[in-house]
Amino acid sequence: MTHIDLGVDERLSPGIIGLMRYRPETAAPLSALAETLLRGPHPLSAGERELIAAYVSGLNDCRFCCGSHSAFAAAQLVGGAATVARARACPDDAPITPKVRALLHIAAAVVEGGRAVTADLIDAARAAGATDLEVHDAVLIAAAFCMFNRYVDGLATFAPDDPEAYAAHAGHIVEHGYGV
Amino acid sequence: MTHIDLGVDERLSPGIIGLMRYRPETAAPLSALAETLLRGPHPLSAGERELIAAYVSGLNDCRFCCGSHSAFAAAQLVGGAATVARARACPDDAPITPKVRALLHIAAAVVEGGRAVTADLIDAARAAGATDLEVHDAVLIAAAFCMFNRYVDGLATFAPDDPEAYAAHAGHIVEHGYGV
Repeated sequence: MTHIDLGVDERLSPGIIGLMRYRPETAAPLSALAETLLRGPHPLSAGERELIAAYVSGLNDCRFCCGSHSAFAAAQLVGGAATVARARACPDDAPITPKVRALLHIAAAVVEGGRAVTADLIDAARAAGATDLEVHDAVLIAAAFCMFNRYVDGLATFAPDDPEAYAAHAGHIVEHGYGV
Repeated sequence: MTHIDLGVDERLSPGIIGLMRYRPETAAPLSALAETLLRGPHPLSAGERELIAAYVSGLNDCRFCCGSHSAFAAAQLVGGAATVARARACPDDAPITPKVRALLHIAAAVVEGGRAVTADLIDAARAAGATDLEVHDAVLIAAAFCMFNRYVDGLATFAPDDPEAYAAHAGHIVEHGYGV
């Protein structure tokens, strides 16, 4: 059960949804950050950026964020859920571009801690074609999900078990975004 | 040296300052989040909230964020830098309220991971007088600095060694805030 009273039915407003209703003052910049990072104009596709979010959330063992962003990535990536599952299990064996693979390696280092992002990881991403902007945003997406994951689980919000519960929201997110 | 070319002199724009100049689209929600969490209307003083930010940044070994927010906390807390140093070293021995002490224990758990925030930690904060809003914001401040710390260090930005370099900015932050 959620650690604080959010004033909502947590089954209807799971994860960050209930938190955002509880505290609209912080919801506004959090939504704007997610919208800019995951859906703003960018050389990486929205699906590729959602995959970074899903991958990080899986490493942080955050069921709500991992379920949500895996579904949003699957809805926008070639290969759908199978591609997401393979990338989450092992980026090196997944049908993704070498550039996205290298950015996932950077994201895994960010989960460990900022100082774990080595010049070698950056060089590998560059060799695979990543620009400064792509490196920047991969680091910030990974860092942002280290926040979102801790926010959602640190307050013990409800997270559905059924992957279908997350997939049901994917169409809305793909079409309308993060409510900015 | 910073992993990407931010187009700034990193000595003049250290830490997150250069990152925000490089990517104003993400700087806007990040600044708004910091302003709301650390300086918006709140039962916790700005100094107490800056102390949570400084404490988390210390645990994450982020020199730039820890130096900055330690200075901003010191400028706004009774006892100044000595109080900040004692709280960062050991919250249980520091001249801070039992409520802030309990919130720092929650913040330390957030650094470890969202699931490390136990009902016992929440109960202890409540027993010390913390409200739902204070618990919520302590968790989100701690989570947000798990992001800011990884962002700043994940891109290997420059961080001055000299505490005076951070203290020199405290007056501006206290008076003008985070530039929203």
